[in-house]
Amino acid sequence: MSSHVREKALLARQASLALANKSTEVKNKALLEVAENLKSSEQYILNANKVDLDNLTQKDNYSKAFYDRLLLDSKRVDSMADGLKDIVSLPDPVGEVESMSKTPNDLTVGRIRTPLGVIGIIYEARPNVTVDAAGLALKSGNAVVLRGSSEAINSNKALVEIIQGGLEKAGLPAGGVVLIEDTDRAAAQELMNMDDLLDVLIPRGGHSLIRNVVENATVPVIETGAGNCHTYIDESADLKMALSIARNAKIQRPGVCNAMETLLVNHSIAEKFLPDFLEALNQEGVELRGCPETQKYHAAVKEATSEDWETEYLDLILAIRVVKDLQEAIHHIQTYGTGHSEAIVTNNYRNSRKFLQQVDAAAVYVNASTRFTDGNEFGLGAEMGISTQKLHTRGPMGLKALTSLKFIIYGDGQIR
Amino acid sequence: MSSHVREKALLARQASLALANKSTEVKNKALLEVAENLKSSEQYILNANKVDLDNLTQKDNYSKAFYDRLLLDSKRVDSMADGLKDIVSLPDPVGEVESMSKTPNDLTVGRIRTPLGVIGIIYEARPNVTVDAAGLALKSGNAVVLRGSSEAINSNKALVEIIQGGLEKAGLPAGGVVLIEDTDRAAAQELMNMDDLLDVLIPRGGHSLIRNVVENATVPVIETGAGNCHTYIDESADLKMALSIARNAKIQRPGVCNAMETLLVNHSIAEKFLPDFLEALNQEGVELRGCPETQKYHAAVKEATSEDWETEYLDLILAIRVVKDLQEAIHHIQTYGTGHSEAIVTNNYRNSRKFLQQVDAAAVYVNASTRFTDGNEFGLGAEMGISTQKLHTRGPMGLKALTSLKFIIYGDGQIR
Repeated sequence: MSSHVREKALLARQASLALANKSTEVKNKALLEVAENLKSSEQYILNANKVDLDNLTQKDNYSKAFYDRLLLDSKRVDSMADGLKDIVSLPDPVGEVESMSKTPNDLTVGRIRTPLGVIGIIYEARPNVTVDAAGLALKSGNAVVLRGSSEAINSNKALVEIIQGGLEKAGLPAGGVVLIEDTDRAAAQELMNMDDLLDVLIPRGGHSLIRNVVENATVPVIETGAGNCHTYIDESADLKMALSIARNAKIQRPGVCNAMETLLVNHSIAEKFLPDFLEALNQEGVELRGCPETQKYHAAVKEATSEDWETEYLDLILAIRVVKDLQEAIHHIQTYGTGHSEAIVTNNYRNSRKFLQQVDAAAVYVNASTRFTDGNEFGLGAEMGISTQKLHTRGPMGLKALTSLKFIIYGDGQIR
Repeated sequence: MSSHVREKALLARQASLALANKSTEVKNKALLEVAENLKSSEQYILNANKVDLDNLTQKDNYSKAFYDRLLLDSKRVDSMADGLKDIVSLPDPVGEVESMSKTPNDLTVGRIRTPLGVIGIIYEARPNVTVDAAGLALKSGNAVVLRGSSEAINSNKALVEIIQGGLEKAGLPAGGVVLIEDTDRAAAQELMNMDDLLDVLIPRGGHSLIRNVVENATVPVIETGAGNCHTYIDESADLKMALSIARNAKIQRPGVCNAMETLLVNHSIAEKFLPDFLEALNQEGVELRGCPETQKYHAAVKEATSEDWETEYLDLILAIRVVKDLQEAIHHIQTYGTGHSEAIVTNNYRNSRKFLQQVDAAAVYVNASTRFTDGNEFGLGAEMGISTQKLHTRGPMGLKALTSLKFIIYGDGQIR
């Protein structure tokens, strides 16, 4: 067993006890110290990052996208520091009393918001996650155990060293943010089973990383990520609005989880809507895959297979299906959706209400692009990812999602 | 693979889609129908229960307590039916909008309470859990998959048959409450890994059952149960109140999870408090195990070992330790507590505040008995158990704990 992992988690556990009751002032001071340190240590960070990049380019098969996610530059370091300042400006959720009421026997029973304790993050080669996750965890009074991927190990070591320096300057324990430096599978597995030390594990990354954590962790997990998102164009939709929303949901940033993957169109407006829409997307270079009915409206539409309904392309590809009515659209979404973000474009009151009620997803929209599913857009500030499970928290996870509620009871000697 | 388990879970999944949007009226009608059915089918239930009891008594080693938990009689059937009526009187959490606000670009973003979906319950030989769990799940719009133990299989079959009859009378799908009739380990394991069909799994029972579920489930779990609860008598405590609270926490019902297992006493009042207290508990037949300091104050006190600090006796046994100060008491609780219920008896404002802040447990008390940790006592109504984890819900789980919040977004054509 890798005792290194356990030692680090123990440090975090101890630090979490100290962090849990720190004032907002002290936590903010620490975040600002870290932001300062990041800026003043920019060259140190970029040098470490260069080692990771050089190691990567010596491999045979790496993608440009992977390289880009790993890459840090001066602008990105600034943006990490600015992200911490944004977190400083968010209200501290810890200590908020959610409710307080009196029982018949005169006990005063309330629920107060507390940190979760120790948060584990298992993530891929994105060094910005190191800083974001540490910032959100600290502000909400939690300690964090970071386990990034091997490709980013030098960048992560440098960043965590800098974060720890900031913590210590503010009088907080360095153990508040620890990095697991073993990047082998055994170390990850050890972390996943450390339910005596970790309160929650959040995997951030691709499908296989998330499945691996969900299947192998005994620590409670918050599942993030997969977004097979739909937009349904109802019979009563304003067609100009429908085109604008659907176009935006697909092409504004196709590689992210809240981008649209399948468009559903009510058959009675298909003829009016689809020719212009398909032509517009074809001109944007979107590959179109449709049902036989859709294929009638544009020559560029390839035939969709049932696999297309299931696929999160994360690319300039769109599946299109003409449906009989709202109920068939909802049924399609229930069958193939991943519970992330779903939208209806309609001007029919009853249909809007039905869609909001019956579609089971983290975010359900009427007349807006699914691209808004994001902590900042929803007014939560920075986010720790988007939960696609229903337990604990659903949708963008802001600071409150990193807290729990404990009961506090004030009595005067009551007994049962 | 036991396809029986999957078939049942699929029925529940389908039913959950129908239940999610049923009106409170319809759900209440179903609960009242079930309550009626229970009363009118009393003899049928008791006959089935008799088969289970006869099977049990043919075994060599069963405890009286086990027999008693399995036993149903007319009064207990009535009490199950009355429990359902209590659930009818609780407010329906589904559809409640928790917040609704406008973003700078004029989207209206809210969070609305929805059912979790399908709740799995794995439990021991307590037939009343079958009815309680079904009632709470239905009221909150969820379907439930029940997996009771083999010893109660005939009772559970009869009860679920009656529940399903009530559902159908109210026009709800019988699949809303299903029973896994395979009681072997493989069936339980299959259920634990059914994360495509189940949204949460709640184990109810002893330590080994709960550990087994936590360690083997890929479905998200809510951990319930273990309560190694403490009461700390502060230097400034009203000694009469301290005696009353500590006595109540230990002896009023020693076999339950919110009963006190260890008493911590500030050394500066040990001499004034302990002799009378120890004598009182000794007279009540409580076995006393104390630190050397405690042993000075009563001849009946045996020597406590470190194992005593860790043990949830669930019996008329009490561990007692004299501590230097509040900080040592909190440290003891942090070291040995299970995060269930912890109390301080004090008249010192600062100490009360410190205890409430620093003790990390589901319920933290000032000047009241830990025995109040209970859904009914806290004003939540009936409960689905007491969560000792921090994720999703902590402490007694009422109807709200069986729901999630989804984002709903009203727009007018907004795009990013």
